Amino acid sequence: MLTDKFANHNFYLVSKSPRRHELLKGMGINFTYYPSDVEESYPEELTPVEVAEYLSQLKLSNINFEEFTEKDIFIACDTIVVLDGKVIGKPRNEEDAVRMLRELSGKEHTVISGLTVATKGRMKTASSKTAVKFAEVSDEEIRHYVNNYKPLDKAGAYGVQEWFGYVGIEYIKGSFYNVMGLPTRLLWEMLGDFVR
Amino acid sequence: MLTDKFANHNFYLVSKSPRRHELLKGMGINFTYYPSDVEESYPEELTPVEVAEYLSQLKLSNINFEEFTEKDIFIACDTIVVLDGKVIGKPRNEEDAVRMLRELSGKEHTVISGLTVATKGRMKTASSKTAVKFAEVSDEEIRHYVNNYKPLDKAGAYGVQEWFGYVGIEYIKGSFYNVMGLPTRLLWEMLGDFVR
Repeated sequence: MLTDKFANHNFYLVSKSPRRHELLKGMGINFTYYPSDVEESYPEELTPVEVAEYLSQLKLSNINFEEFTEKDIFIACDTIVVLDGKVIGKPRNEEDAVRMLRELSGKEHTVISGLTVATKGRMKTASSKTAVKFAEVSDEEIRHYVNNYKPLDKAGAYGVQEWFGYVGIEYIKGSFYNVMGLPTRLLWEMLGDFVR
Repeated sequence: MLTDKFANHNFYLVSKSPRRHELLKGMGINFTYYPSDVEESYPEELTPVEVAEYLSQLKLSNINFEEFTEKDIFIACDTIVVLDGKVIGKPRNEEDAVRMLRELSGKEHTVISGLTVATKGRMKTASSKTAVKFAEVSDEEIRHYVNNYKPLDKAGAYGVQEWFGYVGIEYIKGSFYNVMGLPTRLLWEMLGDFVR
């Protein structure tokens, strides 16, 4: 089984996100946080899926794989929110978060995570898509959430695993953990190709 | 806003499930656990939705509402797993859990929660349905999960918020928290009718 072979490898997660740390740990993977300091910009002509995949690869772009062995597996993920074909990033401030949540209210949007797994001499990228339907949320509810939860580090200005996710979401279609920031089942499948 | 009016009420959750406690707390509701000791059986002729709704009402059946006021709001929920029209309960032991997970592997099943909110003189019941698609999971993965997580208290023998939920589920369609045991958005809507 895959889990038994994890001990043969060192895993490096190139993400500061506490949600990703929690999920990777929950999958039974012991890992080290590996910092990456890249400017998260992308070419304008990319489609949303390409943006997510591009950004996940970009996070690994300043790693010198020559310093590592095939036993060292790097994982990077980038999650974006897409409404009517337009990529919504992280809010600039609390007012921007309120504006984003107003825009998402009552509508279905798409959450896309690009996921890249890489080791010395090998890199694989894939993506996961989840549709998320927001209920009609009132301005009072939005302000209550933004004031109390400060969702400034989150694309689309909400955390599906927080108060807003409990009361404001009617349904999702796809992977829930993708919306949280890491498509865990997809990662499990991809690791099957890397772990020996 | 609803949250502001919660202070006017006492909430009682008629469930021992730690997942339900966590979710209700996450919704911002302070509550007291109220024990209910009923035999969870139901008439054979009921449909799966009727079973879930019936069992959620049954959990409130031995409460003497005369001892309470309209300010006291009781919440009961029952979650069942349905495969090919057949209700799957909690596993009797570890071997039974392995058997259930083998049966669910590679297929889509339905999780239904019946939710009842009641106060002196008033009771309302509704339900939430979520489709859950299991990946093809190996016997080794199933045994790893059952041995390490002992999912004997869970309908269908899995917890969507545990290792199995991370690696073994391809997608869901509906409310994630319904699969975890409490359809939080539905409860939020229902409380709108009870909270003043």
